[in-house]
Amino acid sequence: MTCIARTIGLNRENFHRGLPYGALNGDRKYILPMDPKFMIEQGIPFAGRTEVKVLELEPGYVKMMMPLQPNLNHVGTMYAGALFTLAELPGGAIFLSTFDANRFYPLIKGMEIKFLKPATTDITVEVRLDPDEAARIQEAANENGKANYDWECELKDANGQVVAVSSNRYQLRSMKPGA
Amino acid sequence: MTCIARTIGLNRENFHRGLPYGALNGDRKYILPMDPKFMIEQGIPFAGRTEVKVLELEPGYVKMMMPLQPNLNHVGTMYAGALFTLAELPGGAIFLSTFDANRFYPLIKGMEIKFLKPATTDITVEVRLDPDEAARIQEAANENGKANYDWECELKDANGQVVAVSSNRYQLRSMKPGA
Repeated sequence: MTCIARTIGLNRENFHRGLPYGALNGDRKYILPMDPKFMIEQGIPFAGRTEVKVLELEPGYVKMMMPLQPNLNHVGTMYAGALFTLAELPGGAIFLSTFDANRFYPLIKGMEIKFLKPATTDITVEVRLDPDEAARIQEAANENGKANYDWECELKDANGQVVAVSSNRYQLRSMKPGA
Repeated sequence: MTCIARTIGLNRENFHRGLPYGALNGDRKYILPMDPKFMIEQGIPFAGRTEVKVLELEPGYVKMMMPLQPNLNHVGTMYAGALFTLAELPGGAIFLSTFDANRFYPLIKGMEIKFLKPATTDITVEVRLDPDEAARIQEAANENGKANYDWECELKDANGQVVAVSSNRYQLRSMKPGA
């Protein structure tokens, strides 16, 4: 498994710390252009507008939170599009924390999402990619220029109730097909 | 089929015109609290932030457009969450234009969405609900307090290419179960 932390000269211990960049970022003075947490929360303006947060991030693992307040629908629960976004963004987070962003990029191929209960609190999601599965994906992408992978995830409210489940299909692609 | 245009004293001809409300709304002076176009575009702040537009709306039919620019992802195509939102919002639009919003409300039960091509232009979607199917849904909801329905839709780019397809599952529910 090639970790992006290594590709940009960071190891797991200082993965979150970043390097000087010159921009102010709330609770710490500087942000790193390649800071994965910042990229996931703000790299896509659509995601930034939801105020989604990365709570934990390490190779093969992410925990994220979608706040209720900016994402209310017309009946006071979380809008389905915000739940979809929370289910989808771990794809980018796991990619950035697990694969080599200098050689590969991820595509979302599809998702099936089922809405089980109204989401009336902030909602969290956790995704863990097994290291053996990550190695298989990396090896297949090295060999064929692309590799499909999928996972299922649960979106939970503040009481631990599952409000939605999703099946996500992604593809890791080489920036140089056949390389 | 009970049409919301009738429930709020409008007919199909003046469905889009609205009545004085006192708020300014860009290209027309006044908006109506129940103006369906305004409700769909701005009723859910999450949707409003995407700058999605209702291009056409009448009982049983809607055409909507998601602009590319405010919804770009990190590689310059439309983010998957914006495509999901464009696929989902016709659920509310068809509800508002077709069913009685004083007696029923819609729920989204689930969606399967497949991303087929990168979306590199503004994207449109059209949904048409057959009057016989609308009547069946209305009758079932009258009888049982709820009725399931579903449809498939295609999201198309400016060249008519299908960039994503979705299967949407909704439920019409009575505000007074058993009524």
